[in-house]
Amino acid sequence: MSPFIHGDFLLTTPEAKTLFHSYAEGCPILDYHSHLYPRQLAQNEAFENIAQAWLQGDHYKWRAMRTCGINERFITGDASDLEKFQAWASVVPKLLKNPLYHWTHLELKAYFGIEDLLSPETAPSIWERANAILRSPGHGALDLLKSQNVSVVCTTDDPCDDLQHHIALNAREKAFKMYPTWRPEKAMKIADADAFRAYLARLEKTAGFPIQSWSDFLSALEKRHVFFGECGCRISDYSVESFADCPSEKEASDIFENVRAGGVANETDAGKFAAYMLFHFGALDAATGWVRQLHVGALRNPNRAMFVALGPDTGFDAVDDFSYARPLASHLSALAERDALPRTILYNLNPKENVMLAVLCGSFQDGTPGGKLNFGAAWWFLDQASGMRAQLETLAQLGCLSQFVGMLTDSRSVLSMPRHDYFRRILCEMLGADMASGVIPADLPRVGEMVRDMCCRNAENYFSFKI
Amino acid sequence: MSPFIHGDFLLTTPEAKTLFHSYAEGCPILDYHSHLYPRQLAQNEAFENIAQAWLQGDHYKWRAMRTCGINERFITGDASDLEKFQAWASVVPKLLKNPLYHWTHLELKAYFGIEDLLSPETAPSIWERANAILRSPGHGALDLLKSQNVSVVCTTDDPCDDLQHHIALNAREKAFKMYPTWRPEKAMKIADADAFRAYLARLEKTAGFPIQSWSDFLSALEKRHVFFGECGCRISDYSVESFADCPSEKEASDIFENVRAGGVANETDAGKFAAYMLFHFGALDAATGWVRQLHVGALRNPNRAMFVALGPDTGFDAVDDFSYARPLASHLSALAERDALPRTILYNLNPKENVMLAVLCGSFQDGTPGGKLNFGAAWWFLDQASGMRAQLETLAQLGCLSQFVGMLTDSRSVLSMPRHDYFRRILCEMLGADMASGVIPADLPRVGEMVRDMCCRNAENYFSFKI
Amino acid sequence: MSPFIHGDFLLTTPEAKTLFHSYAEGCPILDYHSHLYPRQLAQNEAFENIAQAWLQGDHYKWRAMRTCGINERFITGDASDLEKFQAWASVVPKLLKNPLYHWTHLELKAYFGIEDLLSPETAPSIWERANAILRSPGHGALDLLKSQNVSVVCTTDDPCDDLQHHIALNAREKAFKMYPTWRPEKAMKIADADAFRAYLARLEKTAGFPIQSWSDFLSALEKRHVFFGECGCRISDYSVESFADCPSEKEASDIFENVRAGGVANETDAGKFAAYMLFHFGALDAATGWVRQLHVGALRNPNRAMFVALGPDTGFDAVDDFSYARPLASHLSALAERDALPRTILYNLNPKENVMLAVLCGSFQDGTPGGKLNFGAAWWFLDQASGMRAQLETLAQLGCLSQFVGMLTDSRSVLSMPRHDYFRRILCEMLGADMASGVIPADLPRVGEMVRDMCCRNAENYFSFKI
Repeated sequence: MSPFIHGDFLLTTPEAKTLFHSYAEGCPILDYHSHLYPRQLAQNEAFENIAQAWLQGDHYKWRAMRTCGINERFITGDASDLEKFQAWASVVPKLLKNPLYHWTHLELKAYFGIEDLLSPETAPSIWERANAILRSPGHGALDLLKSQNVSVVCTTDDPCDDLQHHIALNAREKAFKMYPTWRPEKAMKIADADAFRAYLARLEKTAGFPIQSWSDFLSALEKRHVFFGECGCRISDYSVESFADCPSEKEASDIFENVRAGGVANETDAGKFAAYMLFHFGALDAATGWVRQLHVGALRNPNRAMFVALGPDTGFDAVDDFSYARPLASHLSALAERDALPRTILYNLNPKENVMLAVLCGSFQDGTPGGKLNFGAAWWFLDQASGMRAQLETLAQLGCLSQFVGMLTDSRSVLSMPRHDYFRRILCEMLGADMASGVIPADLPRVGEMVRDMCCRNAENYFSFKI
Repeated sequence: MSPFIHGDFLLTTPEAKTLFHSYAEGCPILDYHSHLYPRQLAQNEAFENIAQAWLQGDHYKWRAMRTCGINERFITGDASDLEKFQAWASVVPKLLKNPLYHWTHLELKAYFGIEDLLSPETAPSIWERANAILRSPGHGALDLLKSQNVSVVCTTDDPCDDLQHHIALNAREKAFKMYPTWRPEKAMKIADADAFRAYLARLEKTAGFPIQSWSDFLSALEKRHVFFGECGCRISDYSVESFADCPSEKEASDIFENVRAGGVANETDAGKFAAYMLFHFGALDAATGWVRQLHVGALRNPNRAMFVALGPDTGFDAVDDFSYARPLASHLSALAERDALPRTILYNLNPKENVMLAVLCGSFQDGTPGGKLNFGAAWWFLDQASGMRAQLETLAQLGCLSQFVGMLTDSRSVLSMPRHDYFRRILCEMLGADMASGVIPADLPRVGEMVRDMCCRNAENYFSFKI
Repeated sequence: MSPFIHGDFLLTTPEAKTLFHSYAEGCPILDYHSHLYPRQLAQNEAFENIAQAWLQGDHYKWRAMRTCGINERFITGDASDLEKFQAWASVVPKLLKNPLYHWTHLELKAYFGIEDLLSPETAPSIWERANAILRSPGHGALDLLKSQNVSVVCTTDDPCDDLQHHIALNAREKAFKMYPTWRPEKAMKIADADAFRAYLARLEKTAGFPIQSWSDFLSALEKRHVFFGECGCRISDYSVESFADCPSEKEASDIFENVRAGGVANETDAGKFAAYMLFHFGALDAATGWVRQLHVGALRNPNRAMFVALGPDTGFDAVDDFSYARPLASHLSALAERDALPRTILYNLNPKENVMLAVLCGSFQDGTPGGKLNFGAAWWFLDQASGMRAQLETLAQLGCLSQFVGMLTDSRSVLSMPRHDYFRRILCEMLGADMASGVIPADLPRVGEMVRDMCCRNAENYFSFKI
């Protein structure tokens, strides 16, 4: 049997193979949305073993392990790294057709040259070989990224972060850049009044002046927004889990002042406050020309017992199914009416909203190059073959595929970069099949350039990273 | 490279090619739902250039142009026709995989014999060649329709329209008929009280008697309904953007009388009034044996600034995502209980409702030939390859494909008729693949007759147009 | 023309054919969810003719007949069996691509060896041949099941059923077992107070002690739950048509006591009561290690006139489209917090919820072998080729396909068993294509074992039937 992962993996037509090998494969990776750890990259930290690089913090794998009968001790518990790796190896053969099956073997091949399929039988040898490589010189976290032709990563950062690692790395590196992303979630969540006041204290310190009023609050955030921009930030990110009607600034500031003074906000007021802040940050992003990302539809921490036990981001989040065409349209319209609508990428987590979102983008286009609104890449639970295909087809049929800014990993692990390779293969396979069946012209150079645009050039142009 | 549009465009199996060329291709077109201009057809108006025939009023193209970086001046502004055509030509190459790409080239080929791909390079030559044809004798609006083997078009008309163009054209033409469609939207929208009263004044004049009461109002509408029937109308059309509970007739008449007398209706009452009128018109349609169309799920004018600037139907509408199984079922059930449910075609704009709607049709079937309820063609944003395939597959698996009344353009342009050709190719490709893989029997004559039914004969039988 | 149904029906790759013939085809059928009639099986009742075995109670066929112009007299009316069979035969040729077309011909072939396509022309001969077989010895209801290699069926039963037929049959049969399923619907529906009190009277009698209080009510149900377990029951089933917030036990018991004493419950209280009972039964199922099935999303009896005329389960039910991620998550979380979450299979009737449900399962996994939560088989309206493919792909990409407990018929007819054959072909075709295109390793023995797991072994292990 030939290796499972090979040069033409997932490519079945001659057209697809040419598109991939002649156009897509060589493109640098701009991973414009990730949760990579800035210090890990800035200090090019080494990994002791593959379990540390691969299993720590990877809640995709944890979820699959819980599904396949693995006890929590081998997932987030006190089992050894080797035991956890073995547990993972025992699960992989059960995951045929799951993206984890593809990612796992793409990653073993790309970073370690390993072509064996991971299983309890192959686990010992793979553990040895991968660890030997990780412990050898030139295999720190940053080295690993560079080995995959990554030129840019964007991390996800709080307005109070000092961005020292970004500054240090970018001062040192020429062909690789790490940019921050503005994600002011803690400045929007007022329901937990104590946590909000603690955040105000931190923001005060970071901004360097006391926050004694609503306008101080906005000034402090704006100061940090400017600082992020100076550090190369070009992108913001907001997770939207529900939409409330946007209140007047007076209402928002009243809610704020009440909490600042020691009061609490009920659920309705907390929703309104978040809606106002989303509007406010939108205008701020528009003024600086940043690209705003709205991620809509996560249902976080639905398993209360496990949330209490393990905290957030541990593999228990789900997909919500509420309807939001009208409040989202109303939000966009309110910004557009004030000429304050930033370029915005809309991402959904529930594919039933694909068509609604792709069409809504068209309702706010205004001739901005690359699109004022963009229907974003298949993300998180949708970042698998059928999810990506659905996003690409929907965008193609209801928007403009050739302007797509392309793939992102959304990952915490430097070993995740082959997800770009995965995406590129799926893209080339789709367009190759379209060429072969006459759905698009059989014009390889032209389709090839379009592929290159979607693999890297559109993102370069759309985000216009500097520094 | 062979031409992009060729005889076997989108047809990949021998079975599909035979189904298309031996059965589908020769069928006349019954475009039973359009927004064509009655005067333009009755007077067989000529076009000065292709921009006038192609770009005016085509908000599909406008939306794509705004998405691809074109300034509004070249879309709805004061740029010249040539400049607008050039702007469109610059956008087309970016639209690979979009239905506009297919429609554009199908239309250039079908009406003008042009096989070049439209681009900035080919634009000057195409502009010259197409305009020369449009300006030559025998290329008026009606001539263009006839050149595509169109035998029937249905327009969309207000109850107050005098239908003079329908009457004139049908008196003159034998092999081509233009029928009106009853769309009494203005008689249902009471939220804008001034506009509603202005409409009452117009209705009064058209009906020829004063509207001094609720019963006068209903009588006037009924008189027009009879007149439409006399002019060959067999179809009504209602756009449903939300469902309210249907009130009693007393409640509806109170809301009416209040507004007639100078008052206003709040949003809730306006919703109730529309629900009552939908019920009332349903019973009227049932009594005359017309086919009723319900179009559900548009989110109109979500971009308020552009609505103020350019008005409705300018390419800013979107797709709503509210749930409506229960209120729709309740509406149908209320009519059925009174033995007043007309034959009804249900169209959705959000494909997430495909299964719900296709199944709901089955819940109200009663042995009526051709189906009491029908799951309607993929429409507007869904009128692309994947949308059509999804509608056909859903109908086939959950209802009865062979009874499908087929495609419609919903278009404002006489150049849009190749959308029927597009549909027929997609239909034949689907059934051809099914024959090739054994999903349906490899019985060409039988499947071919079924194709002919769906291309024209089912519509002929279901609507039973006369005059 | 070769027969429509043949050995390789729906199988197009060599891989698919091998998977089916070498692995799937020989697996016994465990039909773990059906509505078969216990007496019919226990007494191995014979059928007089194919209409009685095929058309009685089959509301799938009734619905299709109403859609295709058949008068109700030939569906549920007083027409003769032969007339009804002829009416059905006239409809079948119109149903190309509908699952009924496939099921019909798979069933004629599997039970009667008939390869003709059913139509008005072939109807007389098929009627004669099928009836001759049905009237010959060894063709009773149980014989027919055994002829299809069925080893287990689970019926659907009320807590008050005495299960005498299950007991009798299982005492007699060795290689075939019929197990009850706990479906306590009548104990949850308190909105119709009279019907609820009548049910209490029946429950009282069955339990053997008076129900004079809330705790008596729960005790009686628990006693029946124990009895069901003693009769081999391992599965419960709940149809969820809406989700209300779960009230406190005090609230639930107050609602109960009020109705028991002759009062009524309003719609809100009835919803709360049902929510509490769902919670209570969940804990009961968890305590006994049963597998719980939640069927979500039917819209029952939407056509009020036909419900009055013909009653429930007559082919008028539909698919609802409400959103329920949050209340469902809340229900599961409440049980999990009390360590009382049973293994649960979640089934949806609206495919727009596929992704939401498949992901939500992952949020409650805890290392239970085979999965604490499972995303259930495509069911009812989704039990057709595209519905099954969508369920399989969603499960594969977002959960763990290899743990899937497989297909069920949900049928009232012993002639429905080829739906398992249909499922197996679709499964093998999908995996065969994946092997052929390199999406999964081309490792036939391994993929073949996985197929066998999904065809029977996973169900055997997951439900662990005994007796």
